[in-house]
Amino acid sequence: MTIAYIAESAGVSVPTVSKVLNGRSGVSDETRARVERLIHQYGYRKPPKNRSKLVELVFRELESMWAVEIIRGVERVARRNRIGLLVSEFGLHDADGMIDDTVGRRPQCVLSVAQLSEAERDQLEARGIPFVVFDPVDELPDDVPFVSATNWRGGQAATRHLLELGHRRIAMISGPDHPFCRARLSGYFSALAEAGLPTASDLVVKTQLTREHGYTAVVGLLSRSDRPTAVFTANDMQALGVYQAARELGLRIPHDLSVVGYDDVPAAAWVDPPLTTVHQPLAEMAIAATELALALGRGEEVPQMGLEIATTLTVRESTAPPKEA
Amino acid sequence: MTIAYIAESAGVSVPTVSKVLNGRSGVSDETRARVERLIHQYGYRKPPKNRSKLVELVFRELESMWAVEIIRGVERVARRNRIGLLVSEFGLHDADGMIDDTVGRRPQCVLSVAQLSEAERDQLEARGIPFVVFDPVDELPDDVPFVSATNWRGGQAATRHLLELGHRRIAMISGPDHPFCRARLSGYFSALAEAGLPTASDLVVKTQLTREHGYTAVVGLLSRSDRPTAVFTANDMQALGVYQAARELGLRIPHDLSVVGYDDVPAAAWVDPPLTTVHQPLAEMAIAATELALALGRGEEVPQMGLEIATTLTVRESTAPPKEA
Repeated sequence: MTIAYIAESAGVSVPTVSKVLNGRSGVSDETRARVERLIHQYGYRKPPKNRSKLVELVFRELESMWAVEIIRGVERVARRNRIGLLVSEFGLHDADGMIDDTVGRRPQCVLSVAQLSEAERDQLEARGIPFVVFDPVDELPDDVPFVSATNWRGGQAATRHLLELGHRRIAMISGPDHPFCRARLSGYFSALAEAGLPTASDLVVKTQLTREHGYTAVVGLLSRSDRPTAVFTANDMQALGVYQAARELGLRIPHDLSVVGYDDVPAAAWVDPPLTTVHQPLAEMAIAATELALALGRGEEVPQMGLEIATTLTVRESTAPPKEA
Repeated sequence: MTIAYIAESAGVSVPTVSKVLNGRSGVSDETRARVERLIHQYGYRKPPKNRSKLVELVFRELESMWAVEIIRGVERVARRNRIGLLVSEFGLHDADGMIDDTVGRRPQCVLSVAQLSEAERDQLEARGIPFVVFDPVDELPDDVPFVSATNWRGGQAATRHLLELGHRRIAMISGPDHPFCRARLSGYFSALAEAGLPTASDLVVKTQLTREHGYTAVVGLLSRSDRPTAVFTANDMQALGVYQAARELGLRIPHDLSVVGYDDVPAAAWVDPPLTTVHQPLAEMAIAATELALALGRGEEVPQMGLEIATTLTVRESTAPPKEA
């Protein structure tokens, strides 16, 4: 399969196909779509040569809690390999054309935090630019390389910790319907089942992953007469919302209410009391993802296309045995 | 002044000078040093052509509180200009040779967070790569372009706020002997002088910019019989140390003690009570610094080589009138 063959099939010149392959301008949308369709149809892969010594780290949105840990991990591996690190933000609403700029910079590989659309993945594949998805939010086809964390085990560990302290009425504030939230919730259910406890659906609230939503969700739970003695939240921001609600309701943490968060953001260690939370191995994930992406960029066969790095529970001062125990 | 002339003076070939200019390997340290000396001596500037469409953002150390805000601001300006953003960390202890990698990537300009050594600045200048220092920690020669914040005005605004609430015994936990810490301290002194108050040297403690150091420093101040009614700290981390000390000493914030921080890190809004603090205009600084660097990269004359972006005071719930007022 050659560029010339694609050009002939599409009824365009070889330079036009080359422009499409390299994400350059000067091609009408219609022609570009036709050429891309043929590239995809024929399974054409641009030979991996003439690449810049660059890896591109793509964020959907640069968020302060996470991004630096990830950038730092990727930068260290890139630096050791003497490869430059490009950072770009596709934005949630202005992603159009961004992938063309990325392709035009000819990186050896792309590391994408959160999602790449199917069209974006096709575009990278057609140019022979390998990519790895970091901590995917949605389900991906089996052939898409990814690095994630053991979300199910994290949810299980958090819940087991509360059970071991003697809690029996453990609520969970869960997140939106993403695989990583479902996995944390499923780990919670699994730990309860292990302990022979029923899974009371009235103790689970699904809401957004913000402090405000955590606050609103927990106020409802804590206002009940049979209120839970412990709350496990799907992220640390929700846990901070629980802190605020507890303060307003006059409940002391951990004396009146135990709280376990998820993520171990830097602020988790500074709040009062310091938050017990599931630690995301962001640095390790970043290292593993970069090494995977660089290996794919070198055209190596890799032993596994997806992996989950183990989470650990960081026990601080927001958890204690329940009062009545 | 030509490369040929430098080659002749150094007794080496033109390709060797070219290698030094482009940060490539294959030149002995001794030869490299001799050629660099001549480049510097003759004031040779590599003509700004054949550059990649890249800007390189260099950190001495990637720190979570700051880095993302800066990266986000720089990335947005770079993206609008369709220029790729490289991010690298020189490290505090392993900077050797890093600048060669940066030079080898041929960016249009370099934006350096914190410091570049004189040798690094010389190296960039010799290659005709313009640079801007973001929020310099140390004093710089007058011809080094920089973007900073109005640290003196920030210190003044924080202290004026406490004075307006009626405080008269206002302590300051200051930082190390860097220009930005001196400016904040000087703003504090200036506001006290405006109010006709003496500057009591026993109310000022100079220490490191960490939570632990803030804690230790304030414990001494608060254990005295004539303890201050308000504390202004040189950064938010120190203020969190003050929170911890107040908690341990049974002092309520702001009822028994008012606290003003500096930086407005994200956690400042989440702590209990939310922290009144001087807001660093990081996003605006990043935008201004990138636009300055890109203009220099295009070889434009710029109207000013250094600028300070205004800070603002974010008043939250950690400040109130003193009890005895």
